[in-house]
Amino acid sequence: MWEWTSSPPASPAHPLLADPGADASLCGMAATGASGTNAVRYGTMRPNVLNLRVVLPDGRLLHTAGPGRQPRKRAAGYDLTSLFVGSEGTLGFLTQATLRLHPLPEATAVTIASFPGVGAAVACTVQVLQAAVPVARIEFLDEVMADACGRFSGMGLPVAATLLLELHGSRCSLAEQQQQMEEIVQENGGSSLAWAEGLEEREQLWSMRHNAWYAALALRPGCQVRHKDGDDGSSAHGALSATALPSPAQGYSTDVCVPISRLPDVVVETKQDLQASSLTGQQGHSPLRQRGLRGLTILHATPHLTRGLAGPMVGHVGDGNFHCILVFNSQDPEEAQRIHAFTQRLGRRALAAGGTCTGEHGVGLGKRALLQEELGQEGLDTLRSIKAALDPHNLMNPGKVL
Amino acid sequence: MWEWTSSPPASPAHPLLADPGADASLCGMAATGASGTNAVRYGTMRPNVLNLRVVLPDGRLLHTAGPGRQPRKRAAGYDLTSLFVGSEGTLGFLTQATLRLHPLPEATAVTIASFPGVGAAVACTVQVLQAAVPVARIEFLDEVMADACGRFSGMGLPVAATLLLELHGSRCSLAEQQQQMEEIVQENGGSSLAWAEGLEEREQLWSMRHNAWYAALALRPGCQVRHKDGDDGSSAHGALSATALPSPAQGYSTDVCVPISRLPDVVVETKQDLQASSLTGQQGHSPLRQRGLRGLTILHATPHLTRGLAGPMVGHVGDGNFHCILVFNSQDPEEAQRIHAFTQRLGRRALAAGGTCTGEHGVGLGKRALLQEELGQEGLDTLRSIKAALDPHNLMNPGKVL
Repeated sequence: MWEWTSSPPASPAHPLLADPGADASLCGMAATGASGTNAVRYGTMRPNVLNLRVVLPDGRLLHTAGPGRQPRKRAAGYDLTSLFVGSEGTLGFLTQATLRLHPLPEATAVTIASFPGVGAAVACTVQVLQAAVPVARIEFLDEVMADACGRFSGMGLPVAATLLLELHGSRCSLAEQQQQMEEIVQENGGSSLAWAEGLEEREQLWSMRHNAWYAALALRPGCQVRHKDGDDGSSAHGALSATALPSPAQGYSTDVCVPISRLPDVVVETKQDLQASSLTGQQGHSPLRQRGLRGLTILHATPHLTRGLAGPMVGHVGDGNFHCILVFNSQDPEEAQRIHAFTQRLGRRALAAGGTCTGEHGVGLGKRALLQEELGQEGLDTLRSIKAALDPHNLMNPGKVL
Repeated sequence: MWEWTSSPPASPAHPLLADPGADASLCGMAATGASGTNAVRYGTMRPNVLNLRVVLPDGRLLHTAGPGRQPRKRAAGYDLTSLFVGSEGTLGFLTQATLRLHPLPEATAVTIASFPGVGAAVACTVQVLQAAVPVARIEFLDEVMADACGRFSGMGLPVAATLLLELHGSRCSLAEQQQQMEEIVQENGGSSLAWAEGLEEREQLWSMRHNAWYAALALRPGCQVRHKDGDDGSSAHGALSATALPSPAQGYSTDVCVPISRLPDVVVETKQDLQASSLTGQQGHSPLRQRGLRGLTILHATPHLTRGLAGPMVGHVGDGNFHCILVFNSQDPEEAQRIHAFTQRLGRRALAAGGTCTGEHGVGLGKRALLQEELGQEGLDTLRSIKAALDPHNLMNPGKVL
């Protein structure tokens, strides 16, 4: 457990700073069905867990694939491993996970590409996937998030819709992927930096992305962060409990995921919704630093671009999954109500596009109503039957998910 | 439904011949959790199914991911899709599957490599995976199977432990993969043919592999094949029901899957077991054809190599999964008993190596006892709780799996 107060922003090298998901335990990640930047190539937790040791509600130990077993594939009875991954502690307590490993790539390259708008950045993502470029990470920041991340990390970044792209492969295949990627970026009106291949340079770029949560919070002075174990479904990305906070300002991360083909429309509509909702609140917009990152000219934030400051967008767009990090005053009922209404609209927009209300954070308490809309009565009844069968006395994380 | 009588072998272009799994329906493949030659790169059915429409035992329609939904990832409640994939019809009746698609590769190349023994062929497979060559298919035939397939398909093949290798990629990455593959084959004492890149030539090679089941049956004169809908768990690969056959000779395919690191040992021990068991029966070993495939010298089968004729081995070794196709006289109780004892030893050998009794065929009726050993009492009790919760009147495929 650790605490950090955000305003004014600490130095990028602040010793207490870390990726808000980086202190999750492996079993915690399995329990929430977590994923992240590498999922587009290597999959989420579910396909990477081969076996789980679970304490059942009656105290017995279950090995979901049988004790000590770890074949790459099985067709031996119902897939209990996949059932417990993402069960959010409601069926049993995970105490051991056997994971599939992936070989380290021979070579790695990272770049940042800037686009004229969020639609172009997301359309670029769709083309990258359609062209079967085996991209390892493809992360989206809208111009508000790019601005916040650049300033928070002390790197000047263009204030523009941005993709962070990482490629893995042999030297030869990497060169080919880089060329394909540059062509697709240009076709979508984007421009990219030179490729970073050294470890230190790559880590610097990713550290900027991993601090997106704190960079978003730092947009609003007075925001206090408490990140702790035992959060509900949203814990992997540091959602905060309002009651635990002495400070009125807090962050909440949305988590919809939609089919890739619908992603550009849904992102653009959500951006428009954010801007139209005037979810601006009190802005902690400090002057832009002028130091460019490796020679790219910094665009200054315009009033139009900063209107949506309280909801910067960041996303694992290769999976169709994106987050709006909403920073709001929890003691202002009117603002909290507008935030709630926005998240409901966003959830329903994703459902209408054939997506889900939660791609990786889980249902917890907050998304139970949307879960019902997503699954329908038959789906919810089936979940409840399973819960009642495996935890008849409702001992495991009661009240969550269902 | 079709029938075919095997002795003497029909021409390779026999119009009724087809891959024994190629007439499976998509929902049937989902219900059995099927997989095959491409699973090493693209995954089994489970990670490729995004949604299923299921008729529940009470007649209601369930959409496992919610009606009309198809995001690439979700964390919205228990993973019902993965639960119904591989449930073998015991929880509900699958009537619609939404699948993930993969882009067609720009270029494809296939080769056949021969090795001095089964250990070398499987060790080569392990090295290919460890070197992170993104192999699309890597299929193993022991020397008995290679001999049978070569003769059945009218292609002379070296009578040797064999790998069929397929690579997918761009032109550039394909060339690099081919070079890596050739080096690893040579390091393991193998020699490979020139790469087949044209569609017709590639299809000729795979048709030889896809007829492995019939080639194995053709080793024993008088064997009659009846492949039909409604088989139990083993149907995807054409396991036969003894009671349905007028002919006394029939085939049975084993299906263990073990962690890749244990695969060489388990394959070698199984080969020794087959040879020591003298499961030879009556052999339909016709003279080898002398026509070499693209210039490779054919080795003649030795008496030692043909001793295990009734159990040729074939495997999706990239996943650690292999089959012994046991051809036996179902009306000879002593032979049937020896077959049963062999399959039990093989299942337990796989379990002792941390594997599963079934990688892709399912449990059906025949593997219920091994399933209990594999999962332990807690696992079996958990499966039974789920079955009882979702199908309280035991209407769905009663008696199977559990």
